[in-house]
Amino acid sequence: MLIIGEKINGTLKKTAAAIANRDAAFIQDLARRQADAGADYLDVNAGTGPASEADDLKWLIDCVQAAVELPICLDSANPAAIQSAIKLVQRVPLINSLSGEAKRLEGVLPLVAEHGCPVIVLLLDDQGIPADADRRLEIAERLLDCTRRAGVADDRLYIDPLAMTVSTRNEGVQIALQIMRILHERYPEVNFCCGLSNVSFGLPARSLINQAFLAQALAAGLNAAIIDPMDQGLINMLYATELVLGRDRFCRRYTQAFRAGKIAVPGKA
Amino acid sequence: MLIIGEKINGTLKKTAAAIANRDAAFIQDLARRQADAGADYLDVNAGTGPASEADDLKWLIDCVQAAVELPICLDSANPAAIQSAIKLVQRVPLINSLSGEAKRLEGVLPLVAEHGCPVIVLLLDDQGIPADADRRLEIAERLLDCTRRAGVADDRLYIDPLAMTVSTRNEGVQIALQIMRILHERYPEVNFCCGLSNVSFGLPARSLINQAFLAQALAAGLNAAIIDPMDQGLINMLYATELVLGRDRFCRRYTQAFRAGKIAVPGKA
Repeated sequence: MLIIGEKINGTLKKTAAAIANRDAAFIQDLARRQADAGADYLDVNAGTGPASEADDLKWLIDCVQAAVELPICLDSANPAAIQSAIKLVQRVPLINSLSGEAKRLEGVLPLVAEHGCPVIVLLLDDQGIPADADRRLEIAERLLDCTRRAGVADDRLYIDPLAMTVSTRNEGVQIALQIMRILHERYPEVNFCCGLSNVSFGLPARSLINQAFLAQALAAGLNAAIIDPMDQGLINMLYATELVLGRDRFCRRYTQAFRAGKIAVPGKA
Repeated sequence: MLIIGEKINGTLKKTAAAIANRDAAFIQDLARRQADAGADYLDVNAGTGPASEADDLKWLIDCVQAAVELPICLDSANPAAIQSAIKLVQRVPLINSLSGEAKRLEGVLPLVAEHGCPVIVLLLDDQGIPADADRRLEIAERLLDCTRRAGVADDRLYIDPLAMTVSTRNEGVQIALQIMRILHERYPEVNFCCGLSNVSFGLPARSLINQAFLAQALAAGLNAAIIDPMDQGLINMLYATELVLGRDRFCRRYTQAFRAGKIAVPGKA
């Protein structure tokens, strides 16, 4: 599974302050720690308004690339910011994100087609996030039609079914799992990506809920996630779930990760 | 989910010694700690040979019943031992177990029918445990035919699909999950029960693997498990999985369990 480190995000208070103060040491520490914890991509989101976003994103990208060799997940709701940032990255980025919104279809899809980047695809449109699975599936069908016509291969897509906060709506997670199962059948080449932490918003011991969701989502077809790679409980659950799902031949990945200290049980020697 | 505490089992070294030495304090401590941790039943297995099993089981049952008010899960491969033990229990016991083996069908099924007890049903027969799902499903069909003819209601049955050690066979868990899903469709009233710890045998950080299996098994229909109720990681995963599966209305059980200290994250205040 692809691990996309979520920590360099200007919507988080400390990161916002570091961006405002151009505190490179803070950002580079976040980058290094996520890389050491096993991230495959680092999400970079300036979280600032259109006036400064392009500049902030440029500074962040330079910062991160000076510290680690990982590719960047370019995270912005603003296609223009993605367009200028895409010229700055040293490795093929993951674009975060495309959706059924007109401005993203017009601004982001051509970039994806031109650069052959993988892209996260949110199942929402200009009307917002549909509450039910059927309408989100319709958006998926429509988007796949657009990406295929633009010459983007299905395996470039990381569809995010939008798992909702379980405290607001009990079936919010089930709908996302159902969407993944259906789309996985229909489009076997397509990948799936979720932001895990949204699910547990407003509840205590959030990592446990994220872990339980990860276990279900992996079974439903998830193969990428935006997470905190330093969350040991999540990493533990990732290895253990791949194992019980029969995807870890001879238990090799699990036992190697254990020996390398990547799996760790708190309170145990 | 029904939690059946696994700790009073004579195949475990310390418990065997306590049985041999008639160390009531040791057994009663195990009983109380499992009860405090939230067990619904206490499994009681003398683990001794036919010569002494009936006596040992009697002593264990008296011990446990003097310490806690929980019902007992009478665990023996010997129908005669179950038959004599069933007269000693103060509350309706769970019988562990029936199977397709002739001796259990003859010796255990009449007891279940007579006493109306719930019973764990292992999907094996006199030829052993079939490696594939189809043959285990055949055994299930045959057993259901027998239990129905004996007048035992489907909801008295706790079918154990026999999740195998994942280190010996990578798909050992998947087969068990598949069996549960199929039988859950065919026999909606039937319950499912697994011993969790078998799955992780021979691997490090076993509780993590048991947790990952629990998360998958709950989604497939598991509603009872023989576990160590003092394994905090498992209990955490139980509450969190029920939550993400949309089975915890208003997140009430999760938040109440958290406030009561039943959910606890190691290393967190």
